[in-house]
Amino acid sequence: METTIKEYELIRKKLKAYNYAMYMISWDSATEAPKGSFEDRGKYVGVLSEQAYLLQTSKDYLELVNELNENKDKLDPVLKHEIELAKKENDRTLKIPMNEYIEFQVLMSQSQEIWAKAKNNNSFEDFYPTLEKIVSMQRKFIKYLEEDNMKGYNVLLDMYEPKMTVDTLDDFFGLLKERLVPFFKKIQESNINIRTDFAKLGFDIQKQKEFCDYLIDVLGFDRNHGLMKESEHPFTSGFGSNDVRFTVHYYEHDFTSSIFSCIHELGHALYEQQIDPVLNDTNVGGGASMSLHESQSRLYENMLGRSHEFWEAHYPKLQSLFNEQLKDVSLDEFHMFINRVEASFIRTEADELTYPLHIMLRFDLERALFDGDLEVKDLENAWNEKFYDYFGIEVESAKKGVLQDIHWAGGMFGYFPTYALGSAYSAQLYYHLEKEVDIKQTLLSKTTKSINEWMKNKIHLVGSTMYPKDIIQKAINEEFNPEYYVNYLINKYSKIYNI
Amino acid sequence: METTIKEYELIRKKLKAYNYAMYMISWDSATEAPKGSFEDRGKYVGVLSEQAYLLQTSKDYLELVNELNENKDKLDPVLKHEIELAKKENDRTLKIPMNEYIEFQVLMSQSQEIWAKAKNNNSFEDFYPTLEKIVSMQRKFIKYLEEDNMKGYNVLLDMYEPKMTVDTLDDFFGLLKERLVPFFKKIQESNINIRTDFAKLGFDIQKQKEFCDYLIDVLGFDRNHGLMKESEHPFTSGFGSNDVRFTVHYYEHDFTSSIFSCIHELGHALYEQQIDPVLNDTNVGGGASMSLHESQSRLYENMLGRSHEFWEAHYPKLQSLFNEQLKDVSLDEFHMFINRVEASFIRTEADELTYPLHIMLRFDLERALFDGDLEVKDLENAWNEKFYDYFGIEVESAKKGVLQDIHWAGGMFGYFPTYALGSAYSAQLYYHLEKEVDIKQTLLSKTTKSINEWMKNKIHLVGSTMYPKDIIQKAINEEFNPEYYVNYLINKYSKIYNI
Repeated sequence: METTIKEYELIRKKLKAYNYAMYMISWDSATEAPKGSFEDRGKYVGVLSEQAYLLQTSKDYLELVNELNENKDKLDPVLKHEIELAKKENDRTLKIPMNEYIEFQVLMSQSQEIWAKAKNNNSFEDFYPTLEKIVSMQRKFIKYLEEDNMKGYNVLLDMYEPKMTVDTLDDFFGLLKERLVPFFKKIQESNINIRTDFAKLGFDIQKQKEFCDYLIDVLGFDRNHGLMKESEHPFTSGFGSNDVRFTVHYYEHDFTSSIFSCIHELGHALYEQQIDPVLNDTNVGGGASMSLHESQSRLYENMLGRSHEFWEAHYPKLQSLFNEQLKDVSLDEFHMFINRVEASFIRTEADELTYPLHIMLRFDLERALFDGDLEVKDLENAWNEKFYDYFGIEVESAKKGVLQDIHWAGGMFGYFPTYALGSAYSAQLYYHLEKEVDIKQTLLSKTTKSINEWMKNKIHLVGSTMYPKDIIQKAINEEFNPEYYVNYLINKYSKIYNI
Repeated sequence: METTIKEYELIRKKLKAYNYAMYMISWDSATEAPKGSFEDRGKYVGVLSEQAYLLQTSKDYLELVNELNENKDKLDPVLKHEIELAKKENDRTLKIPMNEYIEFQVLMSQSQEIWAKAKNNNSFEDFYPTLEKIVSMQRKFIKYLEEDNMKGYNVLLDMYEPKMTVDTLDDFFGLLKERLVPFFKKIQESNINIRTDFAKLGFDIQKQKEFCDYLIDVLGFDRNHGLMKESEHPFTSGFGSNDVRFTVHYYEHDFTSSIFSCIHELGHALYEQQIDPVLNDTNVGGGASMSLHESQSRLYENMLGRSHEFWEAHYPKLQSLFNEQLKDVSLDEFHMFINRVEASFIRTEADELTYPLHIMLRFDLERALFDGDLEVKDLENAWNEKFYDYFGIEVESAKKGVLQDIHWAGGMFGYFPTYALGSAYSAQLYYHLEKEVDIKQTLLSKTTKSINEWMKNKIHLVGSTMYPKDIIQKAINEEFNPEYYVNYLINKYSKIYNI
């Protein structure tokens, strides 16, 4: 057994080295690689994926995982869980033919660049041949991966949130629709006038960076084990708790975009940084699931970052950086502005209340694509029609519509629903956090330290050594319950809109 | 034969993929990786080097190279040359035991970070245990690699400049000492007063970056296939002509440092970018040797970048960026300033005339380290004593002395002499360039286009498909001759110092 474990660990280390190389290459691709280098890079990514794939599907590795899986009750709990996950992953990988797997990786190494250009040119035409390839490969992958009790789009959902099904999501979005849609109507009819004139002014990008750099320290991100950079679309990536990186995108005429995407990504980044470093050599040293990750980013972004207390502490700093633009904007006016509810185009800029509608739109389109009811060439039209149905406004451009997100360019179908689920988790966690930590006082003292500490102990530290639902259960001693989310939203926005 | 070539190319592609991964990782290490990530990263670099080493020493690869080498006269000239080089490399690699090779790679992945910290702390003590490990491993490697007609330090020289020997360098530096040292004395005794008061003022780093960014376009660097960034010590690296990157370091109180290191690195970068892209999949798609590379960087930096014509074209731009500091500094005063000759501490900031002395110092110390006349613990003292002998001034700090260069931290012993050799090549090339291209008119029109074009056709395009001496021979129809270098220097500085 001892020997089997050692041999397994040796292959794991090699696989991690390949993944580390891919981590470096994709970080470089997203943040700074010269545009003209992407074709050559695709070849090398192809070779590295092939090597990793050969190792991951080697007889040695498969047998080692099988042997350990058969004896898993003799393993320590961390390794036991890792082996369970590896066994599941192996069963999945073996079903996809190697040449198709590699072809997909090569496509992935180029598609984000093509998407970025297409977005820049505001042209879905420029992107759709690539997206068509991605979807067509994903459709084939689904066929390979389907099981008796898991068909079609459920296969994709399961990749990002184990055991998640279309049925559960239908129920979840059903509840949100039932209670939030009429509430949103009330808000739209309210007479509250929220000042927005200042928001469209030019805000120097260098100063926006300076403010994000300040937020890094406020939220307690460890600069010695991570960094912040720029990319087309903000994201967080990491390789163990010692190397966690995130990006922000700056818009001169939309200054709160960078602020809240920075806080959002810091939520993800804190999660990764606070995982126990003893797990760094294992495969369970990352976040437990997409939705759990999103519960952290949205809790930091919305519940902390849009609170009155947070801005009581930091608005003077913001005002001093942008004196010209903000000198006659009061704290209350600013607080109302960052919590205004309205129909808008960009998901990442959407308010908390309409946010789930953006997710529903994507969920509906993904289902249609994989149920065979929609073709990629019709995606832009389908997007625009559905958007008009939900939000009552016409999509102005591909950039503000179907091309706004990087996810599909990265082959990530089934990912979006985890955002809504994460928001629901965040409200449930916040409810329990508030009972144990003086959140308001913490924020007023210009830190999130005691909150980080609570999250570290309840959620972060264990990494993915447990299933997400078990982590939640252990942290707050109850199961997932979306009622918290709906109650939180209605409570918060009733106060703001005085209804 | 066809099949053998195909099999060889397949392994070459894999090896290039590993090297590409290492290229990404080391670029990241030098420019932005979080400090706390270096330990974990060392593990993965170890695995990747091991995989590359296993492939490079695999029976398959060695046999393929041997077979092709035996039939090399049947190969096209490009592949023939590549196979000759591979055969030489194989013979070399096989002599170093695998565990020591990997140990060295792991050490290399950490040593640059340790060096940067030590330099920052101004403490040779902090770096010397690491440097001792590097030197001790290099000494062992020399023993493994020695041949009947190549002993000791010659082994290291041969790595960077094939066929270069200590004897040749002794002759070369002998000529420089004989004619330049008395000339330097004359300059020191001259009455010319060069204005330097403005140079110590604070020059905003953001504006320095802006000027370097401007130089990128002046020199015709292709932004679509490369980028500029910051690091502790400026360098250029690349992976084929489609991905060429260089760095600059900015000092607030030494504004010409970034300007000339930028032009210097652009010389290297143009070389890499102008190599025929059809060579990108081969192993002969890079510069032909260190000295040939240095001939380009120093030609651009000194012969073009410090010329009166260059600044007739660009001084107004510089003046407008730094109006406060330069408003009462005339073009002639600036031109004199950037061509002043003096004893100084930092090699990369040294003037053209004293530059070879800095190289001689390093050459002497490297020889002593590898002849066994000097131990690493005594290196700082030895440096400081020798420095006083050559320059007549006391070294102020490790930062300005033994810790100033990154080379030794990267295991690059035997590299420094190529700088002096490169300078000599540059003067010889310049002589012939001037006969065919109107250099002055080109520079006055704010470009280097016709010069780039000449270099492309004469030197760059062929990459390393030929030996450096053959490239020179073919370009200018004569052999290496250091007289051009001495004549150029004496001619130029006689005019400037009016002697």
